[in-house]
Amino acid sequence: MIDLRSDTVTRPSDAMREAARDASVGDDVYGEDPTVNDLQDRVADVLGTEAALLVPSGTMGNQVAARTHTERGQEVLCERESHIYKWELAGLAQHAEVQPRTLDGGERGVPTPEQVREGYVAADGHRPGTGLLTLENTHNSKGGVAVAPERVRAAAAAARERDVPVHLDGARLFNAAAAHGVPASEFVEPVDTVMCCLSKGLGAPVGSVLAGPDDFVEEARRVRKLLGGGMRQAGMLAAPGLEALENRGRLVEDHRRAARLAEGLDRIEGLSADEPETNIVLVRTDRPAEAFLEDCEAEGLLGVAFDDCLVRFCTHWDVDDADIEEAVAAAERAA
Amino acid sequence: MIDLRSDTVTRPSDAMREAARDASVGDDVYGEDPTVNDLQDRVADVLGTEAALLVPSGTMGNQVAARTHTERGQEVLCERESHIYKWELAGLAQHAEVQPRTLDGGERGVPTPEQVREGYVAADGHRPGTGLLTLENTHNSKGGVAVAPERVRAAAAAARERDVPVHLDGARLFNAAAAHGVPASEFVEPVDTVMCCLSKGLGAPVGSVLAGPDDFVEEARRVRKLLGGGMRQAGMLAAPGLEALENRGRLVEDHRRAARLAEGLDRIEGLSADEPETNIVLVRTDRPAEAFLEDCEAEGLLGVAFDDCLVRFCTHWDVDDADIEEAVAAAERAA
Amino acid sequence: MIDLRSDTVTRPSDAMREAARDASVGDDVYGEDPTVNDLQDRVADVLGTEAALLVPSGTMGNQVAARTHTERGQEVLCERESHIYKWELAGLAQHAEVQPRTLDGGERGVPTPEQVREGYVAADGHRPGTGLLTLENTHNSKGGVAVAPERVRAAAAAARERDVPVHLDGARLFNAAAAHGVPASEFVEPVDTVMCCLSKGLGAPVGSVLAGPDDFVEEARRVRKLLGGGMRQAGMLAAPGLEALENRGRLVEDHRRAARLAEGLDRIEGLSADEPETNIVLVRTDRPAEAFLEDCEAEGLLGVAFDDCLVRFCTHWDVDDADIEEAVAAAERAA
Amino acid sequence: MIDLRSDTVTRPSDAMREAARDASVGDDVYGEDPTVNDLQDRVADVLGTEAALLVPSGTMGNQVAARTHTERGQEVLCERESHIYKWELAGLAQHAEVQPRTLDGGERGVPTPEQVREGYVAADGHRPGTGLLTLENTHNSKGGVAVAPERVRAAAAAARERDVPVHLDGARLFNAAAAHGVPASEFVEPVDTVMCCLSKGLGAPVGSVLAGPDDFVEEARRVRKLLGGGMRQAGMLAAPGLEALENRGRLVEDHRRAARLAEGLDRIEGLSADEPETNIVLVRTDRPAEAFLEDCEAEGLLGVAFDDCLVRFCTHWDVDDADIEEAVAAAERAA
Repeated sequence: MIDLRSDTVTRPSDAMREAARDASVGDDVYGEDPTVNDLQDRVADVLGTEAALLVPSGTMGNQVAARTHTERGQEVLCERESHIYKWELAGLAQHAEVQPRTLDGGERGVPTPEQVREGYVAADGHRPGTGLLTLENTHNSKGGVAVAPERVRAAAAAARERDVPVHLDGARLFNAAAAHGVPASEFVEPVDTVMCCLSKGLGAPVGSVLAGPDDFVEEARRVRKLLGGGMRQAGMLAAPGLEALENRGRLVEDHRRAARLAEGLDRIEGLSADEPETNIVLVRTDRPAEAFLEDCEAEGLLGVAFDDCLVRFCTHWDVDDADIEEAVAAAERAA
Repeated sequence: MIDLRSDTVTRPSDAMREAARDASVGDDVYGEDPTVNDLQDRVADVLGTEAALLVPSGTMGNQVAARTHTERGQEVLCERESHIYKWELAGLAQHAEVQPRTLDGGERGVPTPEQVREGYVAADGHRPGTGLLTLENTHNSKGGVAVAPERVRAAAAAARERDVPVHLDGARLFNAAAAHGVPASEFVEPVDTVMCCLSKGLGAPVGSVLAGPDDFVEEARRVRKLLGGGMRQAGMLAAPGLEALENRGRLVEDHRRAARLAEGLDRIEGLSADEPETNIVLVRTDRPAEAFLEDCEAEGLLGVAFDDCLVRFCTHWDVDDADIEEAVAAAERAA
Repeated sequence: MIDLRSDTVTRPSDAMREAARDASVGDDVYGEDPTVNDLQDRVADVLGTEAALLVPSGTMGNQVAARTHTERGQEVLCERESHIYKWELAGLAQHAEVQPRTLDGGERGVPTPEQVREGYVAADGHRPGTGLLTLENTHNSKGGVAVAPERVRAAAAAARERDVPVHLDGARLFNAAAAHGVPASEFVEPVDTVMCCLSKGLGAPVGSVLAGPDDFVEEARRVRKLLGGGMRQAGMLAAPGLEALENRGRLVEDHRRAARLAEGLDRIEGLSADEPETNIVLVRTDRPAEAFLEDCEAEGLLGVAFDDCLVRFCTHWDVDDADIEEAVAAAERAA
Repeated sequence: MIDLRSDTVTRPSDAMREAARDASVGDDVYGEDPTVNDLQDRVADVLGTEAALLVPSGTMGNQVAARTHTERGQEVLCERESHIYKWELAGLAQHAEVQPRTLDGGERGVPTPEQVREGYVAADGHRPGTGLLTLENTHNSKGGVAVAPERVRAAAAAARERDVPVHLDGARLFNAAAAHGVPASEFVEPVDTVMCCLSKGLGAPVGSVLAGPDDFVEEARRVRKLLGGGMRQAGMLAAPGLEALENRGRLVEDHRRAARLAEGLDRIEGLSADEPETNIVLVRTDRPAEAFLEDCEAEGLLGVAFDDCLVRFCTHWDVDDADIEEAVAAAERAA
């Protein structure tokens, strides 16, 4: 079975497994796990932030960020298809008690500075006031679009002009960096905080990191505890995470394979796919996505339905060139 | 000074004042205020619902409704310029812990059935599920647009097909009824619950009513207590409210005056106004709204800024035909 | 029927009714109701605070206070039988998202300074930190106990030493003042904010007031809007409220009658009652309170059950000396 | 350095490390991690529940339980020194929006059936109603007291008679089972749900488990996602967790060592310690706990301050008999 449902399904490498076994650990609730501390320092270094905090999931990283940045009852500007708004069980309302104001980021999933300015609300006796702008890069629902640093910078600047902080959901930030051939820190420099997943394209078994200024991360640690994200000998996860971090260079392989996959699928009668920018391929089907996926599964290929006639396939490090060719063949048989 | 800022600024009539003085009262927290009970029965009768509940404000009526209809963490479909979303201090997130999903209702401020169907989200492990559709009629931010019963019915039906209840923010429902020449109950029949203000066009000093099925109103009474809306000898407010309810017939006068006002303002250089449907006149200005309003005030006319170059004037029963002519003259001097 | 269920059941006086009829009003959401402003100024003057805010109920006043003083996730020190903890539908958790830490205030319902110091929690990574101390005077559940100014001062000082603000639930503060023969401001001086009801012993139909420093009241106005407590021509309520405020002097009559009632009831076989301090009489029954109350009702007397074998009677200005004698006689027939 | 601060500081065994390395894994967000599924099945089997759910921390397990059991605005009966009330950042108010009603569980930290019955509140228009009873065993703040199954049963029965569900915080449940020489399931049978930590006495690096009926666990999975506790290849943690589960038998060693430690410390001038029931030793000091702990640290021994003059030491599998003797010697030098 070729599993292209998500880049989260990857099995850890032997190196990651060895690293877990050999990890030097301590109690991270006391801040004493050396491997966790190493990972946090290393990620902060890569992203160019003062500090970083390991969290069990990307959802927790985003929710801790939203809660730490805002006061209850504020508004949060976010893209209408963004993960933090769409796929996190209304956590914005539940954890932070904030109200999303959604912007239509168009095909690239990123609002323009004008949209940010128009969406901004000043607090008064009737209106809650804007407390945060969130951006997402690469943008999952838009098909792994890699937003350029300039566009991130422009949207963020429009918020920061009004003293609105900016959080970047960078679950797949390293894919964006690989696509643009720039260091990830270039996307982080114009924002206040960022969340990156180690468990997506980089292949770590578990873990995401929330990064930002020292005082933000200190307060975020407390909110992490509130959400139940404080773990003990978390070095067992941080060690494979450190290994995973070194996989940034190979993400271009995933992107190349995604391009090949899209090209192959687009040639199939009844399917169409644009050229992907990163590792996510969105395929339009001429019949219900669920039915097509059932037939794919029978042929040994897994994907997920993104809409009535839209399917998502993700490339990742557990698939090689041969798998891609086989995936195209399986889709052809299914179509 | 001719005060057209809102139809909430009206002074109570002598009949209302006499009614307050002479009201038969009891402790409404025990359900024993006969005048409150009369008012609630009377409103339920007019709206065609099983029961009704007096609340101190329209905001409380809407928020009690949202909280009573939903479970925390659900989504609420609402129009992007609707009062419940825009002007109630993010109460949806704070009281009900629900996440708004906004629909663009266009010029008439009412979503189409297709928009409702597309906005609907089924609950699963990642998505919160839709728990409520709210509609607003007349629609304040759209300039007092009186949505036709058919359109309310169509949008509501799309929600109810999916077992999503519908709440109608009818702060100015009687204006909509007057504009369409139908009983208010025609707008209420297709929805589950409705909130109407007695203190807007009808002229009561204080009070709104939340109406719906018996079991809903019973639970809403408890949520009203939670929000601090339980009042004691509230018959002192209900009595003028009962008087106000009889003012429904004269709302057409407000509409006629609003039409005359719009016509007069539209002729003024630098101002433009479309023909209003009810008692709200939106006027576009060729300079900042705030500056224009300052000059109006100096000339004896009050309105409110609705946007950078957009001003709202409301007609109401404290202004007569002569006031309207004087308002036009004042605006002309100001412009 | 002699209704001693609560001092909230009083009918407004003719003077209050006339005042409502003749009130000079405006739109209080714009801060323009002159009678509301007069009432707020007058209450602030009586209580010795910078400012005051009219709210529809005592519950709203307490909840607005708790929410305005605290940050979500803090702890609130309160007496274990206090109204804000026991009778307000867990509003502390729902509106302010704070956690009560209850202190046993003993027979007088007021914690000692030692209890406050022991209950205080410093914020750290695991503990939420104390954000507020609430006191109640007179204490309803303890039988209208009138806590002395020194005890209020001592408990408040223990909190303020640790920078914890203090809110006084003074639903019946004027009863406490009357019982001790001191101005109400003596109880307010040592605390940060206070809520007083006009609709209890003072006899106003509707209304309570939250008082404190200017900046607190400004923020409280916004929270009041969030809870739906913004009313329009609220002068119709404020005018009888101003009348009610002048009733402070006659509360000693209620206390004298309560003492006579307790004395009379205590002599009845099967009932016992201590001497009350204010207008609340708690009576222990030798059979279920509900059964005794049913028999009382049949004899023309109303009270409320406070516990399995405990009944509360309240005196108020709608009962005179003859009513008290008749109440004793009715209770004797019922017992 | 002999680290007796907590039983959470243990380093994983070689067997656990090997198990992590060799774990068969999948994406647990899809429910496809075989090792996680094994662990959940195994824990459910040991505890005698239908199902179980891996969570990153005991705090998350407790908070997910409270939120899943209750409706917002209810009351939760809990012991006044219980972890869920005292050490989880007011999560009850923040996640579940419920109000704790604390019971004094005395020296054994467990309320009597009478206390439960008295603490129970029926929902009405003013009172929130009781939605949950929580118990804790062993009770951390009371010094690792191992509550007997009968007492758990009695308290739980009093709640369940009133249809109030019962959650057991069993962070150290296996210590209670070891102390009483009964299977853990005996403590679980009378309650609805239970949370157990693998990362305390059992020595797993990370992980706790929430167990209960199938439908509860299904809903809890969704709440876990909301809190950000959904992890990917969590088999890397579940595998050492499975190893840890086999350590139940050796907890009696920790208890024996704790008894020896207490005996040794109690003989030291200026210290006193009662005989512990499990692995937690509480020591009263005749000077400030912090000062004593500083001196201990200088002598090579770590503990934590539990109160002004109270110190907690925990035994665990990283300390042997010789360490205990050395700990006593270090404390003697420090005292």
